[in-house]
Amino acid sequence: MVKNPIVTTVDFERDGVRHGHLRLPYSHDASAWGSVMIPISQIKAGDGPTVLLSGGNHGDEYEGPIALVKLARRLKTKDVAGRVIIVPAMNTPAFDAGRRLSPLDGGNLNRAFPGRPDGTATQKIADYFSTVLIPMADFVLDIHSGGKSLEFLPFAAVHRHDDAALEERCRAAMAAFGAPYSAVLREMDPAGLYDTAVEAQGKVFVTTELGGGGTARPESIAIAERGVANVLRHAGVLSGKIKSAPTAPLDMTDPQGFVIADAGGLLEPCVGLGDRLKKGDVVARVWNVTHPEHAPVSYRAGIDGLLAGRHFPSKVAAGDCIAVIAQETPIT
Amino acid sequence: MVKNPIVTTVDFERDGVRHGHLRLPYSHDASAWGSVMIPISQIKAGDGPTVLLSGGNHGDEYEGPIALVKLARRLKTKDVAGRVIIVPAMNTPAFDAGRRLSPLDGGNLNRAFPGRPDGTATQKIADYFSTVLIPMADFVLDIHSGGKSLEFLPFAAVHRHDDAALEERCRAAMAAFGAPYSAVLREMDPAGLYDTAVEAQGKVFVTTELGGGGTARPESIAIAERGVANVLRHAGVLSGKIKSAPTAPLDMTDPQGFVIADAGGLLEPCVGLGDRLKKGDVVARVWNVTHPEHAPVSYRAGIDGLLAGRHFPSKVAAGDCIAVIAQETPIT
Amino acid sequence: MVKNPIVTTVDFERDGVRHGHLRLPYSHDASAWGSVMIPISQIKAGDGPTVLLSGGNHGDEYEGPIALVKLARRLKTKDVAGRVIIVPAMNTPAFDAGRRLSPLDGGNLNRAFPGRPDGTATQKIADYFSTVLIPMADFVLDIHSGGKSLEFLPFAAVHRHDDAALEERCRAAMAAFGAPYSAVLREMDPAGLYDTAVEAQGKVFVTTELGGGGTARPESIAIAERGVANVLRHAGVLSGKIKSAPTAPLDMTDPQGFVIADAGGLLEPCVGLGDRLKKGDVVARVWNVTHPEHAPVSYRAGIDGLLAGRHFPSKVAAGDCIAVIAQETPIT
Amino acid sequence: MVKNPIVTTVDFERDGVRHGHLRLPYSHDASAWGSVMIPISQIKAGDGPTVLLSGGNHGDEYEGPIALVKLARRLKTKDVAGRVIIVPAMNTPAFDAGRRLSPLDGGNLNRAFPGRPDGTATQKIADYFSTVLIPMADFVLDIHSGGKSLEFLPFAAVHRHDDAALEERCRAAMAAFGAPYSAVLREMDPAGLYDTAVEAQGKVFVTTELGGGGTARPESIAIAERGVANVLRHAGVLSGKIKSAPTAPLDMTDPQGFVIADAGGLLEPCVGLGDRLKKGDVVARVWNVTHPEHAPVSYRAGIDGLLAGRHFPSKVAAGDCIAVIAQETPIT
Amino acid sequence: MVKNPIVTTVDFERDGVRHGHLRLPYSHDASAWGSVMIPISQIKAGDGPTVLLSGGNHGDEYEGPIALVKLARRLKTKDVAGRVIIVPAMNTPAFDAGRRLSPLDGGNLNRAFPGRPDGTATQKIADYFSTVLIPMADFVLDIHSGGKSLEFLPFAAVHRHDDAALEERCRAAMAAFGAPYSAVLREMDPAGLYDTAVEAQGKVFVTTELGGGGTARPESIAIAERGVANVLRHAGVLSGKIKSAPTAPLDMTDPQGFVIADAGGLLEPCVGLGDRLKKGDVVARVWNVTHPEHAPVSYRAGIDGLLAGRHFPSKVAAGDCIAVIAQETPIT
Amino acid sequence: MVKNPIVTTVDFERDGVRHGHLRLPYSHDASAWGSVMIPISQIKAGDGPTVLLSGGNHGDEYEGPIALVKLARRLKTKDVAGRVIIVPAMNTPAFDAGRRLSPLDGGNLNRAFPGRPDGTATQKIADYFSTVLIPMADFVLDIHSGGKSLEFLPFAAVHRHDDAALEERCRAAMAAFGAPYSAVLREMDPAGLYDTAVEAQGKVFVTTELGGGGTARPESIAIAERGVANVLRHAGVLSGKIKSAPTAPLDMTDPQGFVIADAGGLLEPCVGLGDRLKKGDVVARVWNVTHPEHAPVSYRAGIDGLLAGRHFPSKVAAGDCIAVIAQETPIT
Repeated sequence: MVKNPIVTTVDFERDGVRHGHLRLPYSHDASAWGSVMIPISQIKAGDGPTVLLSGGNHGDEYEGPIALVKLARRLKTKDVAGRVIIVPAMNTPAFDAGRRLSPLDGGNLNRAFPGRPDGTATQKIADYFSTVLIPMADFVLDIHSGGKSLEFLPFAAVHRHDDAALEERCRAAMAAFGAPYSAVLREMDPAGLYDTAVEAQGKVFVTTELGGGGTARPESIAIAERGVANVLRHAGVLSGKIKSAPTAPLDMTDPQGFVIADAGGLLEPCVGLGDRLKKGDVVARVWNVTHPEHAPVSYRAGIDGLLAGRHFPSKVAAGDCIAVIAQETPIT
Repeated sequence: MVKNPIVTTVDFERDGVRHGHLRLPYSHDASAWGSVMIPISQIKAGDGPTVLLSGGNHGDEYEGPIALVKLARRLKTKDVAGRVIIVPAMNTPAFDAGRRLSPLDGGNLNRAFPGRPDGTATQKIADYFSTVLIPMADFVLDIHSGGKSLEFLPFAAVHRHDDAALEERCRAAMAAFGAPYSAVLREMDPAGLYDTAVEAQGKVFVTTELGGGGTARPESIAIAERGVANVLRHAGVLSGKIKSAPTAPLDMTDPQGFVIADAGGLLEPCVGLGDRLKKGDVVARVWNVTHPEHAPVSYRAGIDGLLAGRHFPSKVAAGDCIAVIAQETPIT
Repeated sequence: MVKNPIVTTVDFERDGVRHGHLRLPYSHDASAWGSVMIPISQIKAGDGPTVLLSGGNHGDEYEGPIALVKLARRLKTKDVAGRVIIVPAMNTPAFDAGRRLSPLDGGNLNRAFPGRPDGTATQKIADYFSTVLIPMADFVLDIHSGGKSLEFLPFAAVHRHDDAALEERCRAAMAAFGAPYSAVLREMDPAGLYDTAVEAQGKVFVTTELGGGGTARPESIAIAERGVANVLRHAGVLSGKIKSAPTAPLDMTDPQGFVIADAGGLLEPCVGLGDRLKKGDVVARVWNVTHPEHAPVSYRAGIDGLLAGRHFPSKVAAGDCIAVIAQETPIT
Repeated sequence: MVKNPIVTTVDFERDGVRHGHLRLPYSHDASAWGSVMIPISQIKAGDGPTVLLSGGNHGDEYEGPIALVKLARRLKTKDVAGRVIIVPAMNTPAFDAGRRLSPLDGGNLNRAFPGRPDGTATQKIADYFSTVLIPMADFVLDIHSGGKSLEFLPFAAVHRHDDAALEERCRAAMAAFGAPYSAVLREMDPAGLYDTAVEAQGKVFVTTELGGGGTARPESIAIAERGVANVLRHAGVLSGKIKSAPTAPLDMTDPQGFVIADAGGLLEPCVGLGDRLKKGDVVARVWNVTHPEHAPVSYRAGIDGLLAGRHFPSKVAAGDCIAVIAQETPIT
Repeated sequence: MVKNPIVTTVDFERDGVRHGHLRLPYSHDASAWGSVMIPISQIKAGDGPTVLLSGGNHGDEYEGPIALVKLARRLKTKDVAGRVIIVPAMNTPAFDAGRRLSPLDGGNLNRAFPGRPDGTATQKIADYFSTVLIPMADFVLDIHSGGKSLEFLPFAAVHRHDDAALEERCRAAMAAFGAPYSAVLREMDPAGLYDTAVEAQGKVFVTTELGGGGTARPESIAIAERGVANVLRHAGVLSGKIKSAPTAPLDMTDPQGFVIADAGGLLEPCVGLGDRLKKGDVVARVWNVTHPEHAPVSYRAGIDGLLAGRHFPSKVAAGDCIAVIAQETPIT
Repeated sequence: MVKNPIVTTVDFERDGVRHGHLRLPYSHDASAWGSVMIPISQIKAGDGPTVLLSGGNHGDEYEGPIALVKLARRLKTKDVAGRVIIVPAMNTPAFDAGRRLSPLDGGNLNRAFPGRPDGTATQKIADYFSTVLIPMADFVLDIHSGGKSLEFLPFAAVHRHDDAALEERCRAAMAAFGAPYSAVLREMDPAGLYDTAVEAQGKVFVTTELGGGGTARPESIAIAERGVANVLRHAGVLSGKIKSAPTAPLDMTDPQGFVIADAGGLLEPCVGLGDRLKKGDVVARVWNVTHPEHAPVSYRAGIDGLLAGRHFPSKVAAGDCIAVIAQETPIT
């Protein structure tokens, strides 16, 4: 039975504000006795519930890190009842590199759960969350965005769950978050997700997609900041009323809503995020700049709905998801 | 006297539609007798004026290539009076790589003019434009966007010029383009620009910045397409009336309008493109995610104006231009 | 129990010609929701036997992909009785990169069998063959060549097998193929081979080595095309008589036939493919160009035989196999 | 049950001097039938004990390879009673690249034990030691240095062991080695170490750290050469008296002795190797060259002791071990 | 006036056999005071003519280096009357890397003449030949092959020259070489060639193309060795009669003989080297393996002739020269 | 006439302490409007002489940057009479990368003088020194060390100069510096050196070599700090007496003192820095670890002297300078 090698400078049982690191020993050519330093902050007062807040699960998604570093700096002991644990850049090597995946091992942290204490750097991080941080939490909020290659309508999401009571508690937390859109996902391939690892421990879990393109904007940061504060209020860790906001349902469970390129080229988007489409409408065209004598390939909507996500870069490769069309079905 | 080695499959004197290439011999490890193939299209009918349209001067700017490949495919001989020469991806190696600069030689094509026939691949391309294409043109329109690292309000621009008559003709073409914003630039460092090479030959030149971030959107593509058609109508190559649109002036000549990071970190933009700022307002903050105990660095506006451009990625490095603030001064 | 994530656009039960893809979701920095698109074609008519044809198991071997894409384009529903499934580039990422191994994970597909549905991209491809394609097949033909670093006499091959009846059926299919040379292999290290995975399911399996050097020639392509057609006729999927051709036996089972470099340098081959050697003859010399005062190292034949394979590049490294000498023993 | 694929040209049972290789088949893009060639020498005479000597476990540590290649060339059959097996560069690919880790798979050989016969190249090497070489040995000496990123006082070391008799025999061999310093280690994380694999087979094991920085000096080479000869004499394989030398104890088991950087910068060492420190003394400062207006970060000793190891390069990253302070406690 | 920094260990005025180096100082990250060591051998006896023999002008062409290192090792002082200077790997960094171009600076040595003493490493090598070696020579033979990306019929060649007497002497040397084919070239773009630099000094120059694909074969090496010896006999440096062999004329001056790909894909060669073609015959097809529903692009001969050269790898990119068709015109 | 594009935030005419940057615009793929930020500090009081202090001319040499950033932080306006300009990392991109040469363009700053305002990034930095900083200076001290690949005895140095008065003033400044060793160099290849550019403007110039290996030690930093303060006192900018120290002469002008490897391998140094050698003594051996049956190559001293410099890494390549032997000749 191997022990996770990560050590931390934070005492999770002590009240107060503490900014520290999770130190993961990582021997490499440039530093035989080097380590990965994952920033972690804790604000704790008394025995209330624990909320675990995270960003940077993918290293090129920025609303989470920005909202959370601001929160970590702003929150004082007197503000909280219970414990807030903040990890603004879960996959720190990926975040430092500005990449989705870890440059250390190519690892996709959100596909590495529950992790291994003797695995790759990415698997060790996952294992530390699985065995140390998630068990301490009552509520877990993981803030994603589209990253450099995708862009989404801003939405919060929970998963369908066999445990109806847990699903209900997750939905309540999502409602508290108050994103412009809300989705209940039926994950077709849940293996390896942080989401799955959290829910398997019976903890309330909310995730988001807020913007994308490898940038963040004042309005998307504001959604993240308000949502985080709302979830903390919902959990009872922050006092005060939830700042509610209207939200619209998104249903992205129909595979026909995913538009896949079968050849590469220059992508002309024909509709924008939030635009409504009828089945058969042209969503995008892919052009061959080298040979304009060849007609572009037109990609069409497979269902009625609105454009909820899109491939961000103007160059597209065979196999890329060009667009996601969501149905505006009320959540039931 | 070395001759430019580029050969073309297009006969510039023949009427009709022709899609071909500029073939630049390029010997490399993977192909001793390889070449760079730069797509070029010509639509010609009779003896009217010549308009040279280009995109992809920087390889990660996409409104130009999209609007121009669509035009190249759509335009028929009967539509034109004169000649339209379209080069949708001037720096084809950079465009193919999805990068600002050429992967062949690191060359910034827009700093390589007037070029050299015996220089690097990028310099040879510049030289071919300088010695073959520009001399054939009466009007030159070069469509830029912000690329992967910048994002701009959509504007067309011309340069202050010693030759007042030429400047006036350029302004008239810019007005015809009809972008939401229009700028008259005083280039502080004009050496090497395509702009400079065109103007030095006394030709009418208009450039643009339309969006950025390495993506294109339906609305920014529409601006490019309408602008291109308007310039062709203005030149008399296309018939029909110019589709006018309101435009607002932008003056970006005050060096105090450029906000430069003096250390790297996570960028929190505090205002969005088009927002108005007073001198001293916080434009952005740069955070240290690894050490939230350190306060962020706040960057402030050096002048009154509106946010006309911004650093797109959420990671910023020392020396990066974070923001450009433009004055809304009427063009005189 | 994890399910293989590959989905296909081909309906394996429907008659007719269908060109589609195996789509393997592959999330990476440049495309969060990207996929690997492996081309697959099916030509099916009625309920006859199924022949599974593949190339590009290693991505730098070309007779297979060329012969198979030609076949895929040429074969019509009316031509066949049964089903032909064609995968011209099994390890598509390797094929696209022109490399033996996958650039995604360094994977050698032919050492990744039976694969894993939750493994690397290469392991997932292997698993899809093991669990979906091989079970549908009655005959499997996998066309290899020497690749960029080896060159072979053109031969077809089968393996010694504990199941004498299966070995006999494989030999019959090899004879039908009709390559200039034929070999019965005793694999010293069968773990991970596609061959092993096919035979483990009791299916008839034939493999080949046709040429090499990362090129293909009209004559080696012709061997592949004739052989494929012959195997289809042998299986009864194509009608018509097998176009027989003389074949000579090759026995490459003696470890003394493999000549290994124990230091690197410039390789001077002293004999050509197909040349006959006596034990002790010099096969090749390795020269030190930097220090011609040092004598070259001579490598000698360990057995009598003919040169059946050779290291293709003129630079050789310690540990490389310089030459393979085969005995001309009748197959028994 | 997979067999280790490594074959050797050395007959371990035959008397005499033999320089050969361990050949590990390694198929890669540049050589489909390539191999890794790990040099190995054996000097054997009769039936005495076997001493297994190794260097290059990490590829950027040089006292071992230099002392061992000199020994391999110098030692004659008549000199020995028993068997000396010399592997001067265990992780040959790392050694050839001048890197700590293997360029083939990123593997840290000293964390790959006991290895896997069907794993990565590094794991296969570990497995060959575990299953072939260690079982033949009575004494194992593995010579480490600091490598490119660390520098140490020269010391030999053994581990605390549950088997007191084995620990005693290891201590005796360490004493024979006669390094300037001697340490008894309590490995906090023994998983994967060569040390652990050797001790698990009940063999006498001594390791060292001799210098560092990716260089070797006449005096550190001399320590290695004398120590190797002494161990061979101690084992009875070489005749003659041990050349004793004074040694001082080092105790590096207090975690407070390890000084870790929590941010990167330019490293100013304030003490040298062997200097004595009091708890609270400044060991090093880390400077921000870009912003000299920021004060340097001072790192202080957590315990009394002497500086036994240090980060070698002047650039330091967050998480790097800057210094190791050892207590001068007599070994008990 | 900058002096070429290359120094040599060879005394060009001293009789005897000398193997040495041209040492070019080259400061780089891994060696501040490093140098490039270009092997050079001289065999000299008395005052006869000087023949300068070279290979490795492009680093992936091997008949030259093999034939020349063999000659350097074999030739004795007593064998010669005059001086033989052998540089088997002119662009040593490229040769060591197995690449056409220099990994140090991307330089194509055969486009870097006459060179610069203060330029890149490649330009310095060219300058040393221009200012030191060529002036010493009476005859210069530079042995090329197709390299990794091309394959040729074996031919020797000279250039059309304004100086008819010089051209005549070159033709006589080419005839002496005795390659299977012989060509008189009219270089369309002679700038930067070694050939041009030699001829500009009025020296007899012969070049060759012998095989290709990054390999060498016994028969192509034999052509090189016989040709080298014949040229030395022709020059009077070796005694004995020229070993004559039949040669056929090749005329590659018609631009219509060069077949250029205008899109990439999988290359199917339809004819082999030496095959005769009529104008309009299909030379090759380029297939789209990803989309077999698209027809291949057929490339046809632009003139009658025989296939004299071809693109070697099976993957082809837009702009690559697929084939060279030569006319069998007698040399006049 | 192109203007140098570097702008600075330091007002060179204003008294006081100012830490700022030289900002060099540098457009690249990751930041279209990015810049290189070279740190510069000025401490000025009144009209005394100007001393320009620099480190990081090569980016892997650390005594300079450490001593200078400490000085920049410590020095107050009241301490000085005149002006101290400090550039601790001249080639900032190289310094940030921990490499000798610039990662932007491969440039060796110390071979790029006098530079070009329209050249590469490295050439622009050189030009800024040549045209702005050197002209302001009376004394220039440039602190070098051996870098990652060399190690030296600590010495200060000046050059032989045609202007005897200037040479005398340089010698006086060198004597003030007070390094353990002092050298008067006769640069064989002065083109491109910073030294040459400074001396050409008639300014007093002193350079150093202090240690190496890519590290710095307390004792080598102390030499740098004391030397810098002494030069400032010598110039009259700091008050107080020069802290004198004994210095020994070094003469490194005999080319026979430079020992060059003619083949690569594992380097065994046989003498240490400062050791005395007789002509013919073995300085080092180079071993072939892969083939211990081959004898090592011994390199011998070409002159009597002491070991003043040596190749630092234990791996050596053909052409590397293994050792520098200096004569202990009194400076005249």
